[in-house]
Amino acid sequence: MTTVAAYAAPAAKAPLERTTIERRAVGEHDVLIDIKFAGICHSDIHQAREGWGEAIFPMVPGHEIAGVVAEVGPGVVKFQVGDRVGVGCMVDSCRECENCLRGEEQYCLNGIVGTYNAVGKDGEPTYGGYSEKIVVDENYVLRIPDGLSLDVAAPLLCAGITTYSPLSHWNAGPGKKVAIVGLGGLGHMAVKIAHAMGAEVTVLSQSLRKKDDGLKLGADHYHATSDPKTFEELAGTFDLIVSTVSAPMDFGALLSLLKTDGALVNVGAPEEPIALNLFSVIGGRKTLAGSMIGGIRETQEMLDFCAEHGIGAEIELISAAEVNEAYERVLASDVRYRFVIDTATI
Amino acid sequence: MTTVAAYAAPAAKAPLERTTIERRAVGEHDVLIDIKFAGICHSDIHQAREGWGEAIFPMVPGHEIAGVVAEVGPGVVKFQVGDRVGVGCMVDSCRECENCLRGEEQYCLNGIVGTYNAVGKDGEPTYGGYSEKIVVDENYVLRIPDGLSLDVAAPLLCAGITTYSPLSHWNAGPGKKVAIVGLGGLGHMAVKIAHAMGAEVTVLSQSLRKKDDGLKLGADHYHATSDPKTFEELAGTFDLIVSTVSAPMDFGALLSLLKTDGALVNVGAPEEPIALNLFSVIGGRKTLAGSMIGGIRETQEMLDFCAEHGIGAEIELISAAEVNEAYERVLASDVRYRFVIDTATI
Repeated sequence: MTTVAAYAAPAAKAPLERTTIERRAVGEHDVLIDIKFAGICHSDIHQAREGWGEAIFPMVPGHEIAGVVAEVGPGVVKFQVGDRVGVGCMVDSCRECENCLRGEEQYCLNGIVGTYNAVGKDGEPTYGGYSEKIVVDENYVLRIPDGLSLDVAAPLLCAGITTYSPLSHWNAGPGKKVAIVGLGGLGHMAVKIAHAMGAEVTVLSQSLRKKDDGLKLGADHYHATSDPKTFEELAGTFDLIVSTVSAPMDFGALLSLLKTDGALVNVGAPEEPIALNLFSVIGGRKTLAGSMIGGIRETQEMLDFCAEHGIGAEIELISAAEVNEAYERVLASDVRYRFVIDTATI
Repeated sequence: MTTVAAYAAPAAKAPLERTTIERRAVGEHDVLIDIKFAGICHSDIHQAREGWGEAIFPMVPGHEIAGVVAEVGPGVVKFQVGDRVGVGCMVDSCRECENCLRGEEQYCLNGIVGTYNAVGKDGEPTYGGYSEKIVVDENYVLRIPDGLSLDVAAPLLCAGITTYSPLSHWNAGPGKKVAIVGLGGLGHMAVKIAHAMGAEVTVLSQSLRKKDDGLKLGADHYHATSDPKTFEELAGTFDLIVSTVSAPMDFGALLSLLKTDGALVNVGAPEEPIALNLFSVIGGRKTLAGSMIGGIRETQEMLDFCAEHGIGAEIELISAAEVNEAYERVLASDVRYRFVIDTATI
């Protein structure tokens, strides 16, 4: 056991504060990571404030982790001390179900072990990345390629893979017209990745406020969903729409923008049920689907892809003491485009 | 022009009655068909009663047509007098859009010409199968293989293709677990076809009332959706669910029955919007989709498949004078499983 400093929410909706937590001893297949950077994901706030149901406190959020290997267990074969590594949304899964066996651990039929706000196989609560160190089984650790700085790599572990996975699964690429709904933490990664995949990329955002940014990030077109003309002009245009938004929207209107056989894939979602007229999928054989992060193999593929294409997140680096203020700014959509905590300041 | 007897609704919600209509002269590429049998589809009733919006009257419904070629235009190359043929839900489309060009005329981007309750390219209203004869461009006429009786073949032109197309598109076949929701006109065809494709077929019906029928039609399993245990037992089981039901349902519960990457495809749909929590597609990367009839090439493929596997509809043959009574029985789900009009009785 090692005592390490961390930032934790002591109770639901309480501000995060500095504290210490225990990390388990480095086991046979474990890697001890000196955390360098931790991204702030919107879902950190949902969970710290119990927006998604009862949670475990104290809670150390953070599942966008980048750091350096400080120690390895005797059975570790994939990593050495000094390796640059990352940890995403999960630190374990059953490893036996058909989804784990085909490398889609994110859909583990027995449930993944979340990086925080979960209980590990040892019966102890898991604590996330807003801390100095973390101990993780090597099978759930990713290698960060040399070409990627650790600070801009951290958000790839959630925002990157969450958007890369559906773009890859639904074949974004040359000749494909892809729309990204929302230009926030997820959306800005989706634009960069879809562009690098070779697709023609359109941003659909509520307003044109971030249009310049969107075009710089790699979008070919930028339209406001608040303008009814957008839906007239772009009707039947897209092969794929990836929605990163969790606010309620007119999903029938979004589906009308798809070509025949097109797919609207949601990686964000309103907490409340949406209203959907099924005729909007019947005419044109359209798909409304969802996608959740990605598997370990695919996450590595995404990191390699991002390194190859020089893609990192656009970040605002903050000190740990600024985390509560950063949460408020995330809720106000006032971040371009991801807060990353410099964990040296914890 | 030829005057032919027909059964028509003179106005919205008025009972159907015997009348006469004009059929156009047989043009260069036209086929004149002596109609032998016409199936009654639920959508005939929707349209005759203006349930789907303003309609054209008098209306001669019927888009499940089986008959024999009586005359061909000089440019016709596919059919000869005496050929056994069918006509389904469309009698024309633009023939120029990308969907028409790839043989998916049902999704014609300029709109199909419906077999009835539509306006043809000549500006005249179209009249359907509840009549003695019909004139159709040969490109929208199907060949009914010798192995299929015309009476049980007629419903294949809508109920058959509407279920065959999604089963084929979403790869129902050996090793796949397929559920069919609803055992009506569409559902009973879906069971027969999915079984013939080699899938393991489960019927999900409100009650077990038609269980014996379902198993005889080819289902391997039969469960009641009114029993909560059904949803416990079958959670995460199916590769594909085809819903043929137009009553409101709990779509989240249906989605919970899919495996990871499974698809729930709707060929029926409630007129009102459904409520859907998007988390039910995000966990497990599931698809909610729709499908509408099928293209001409695929409809021929379906007829050939049905002939090869000895599949026709289960029908109740009625005389034309019984059509209004039949409509009431369809609305009361009191038909096993498709009414077919013997058009010799018109």
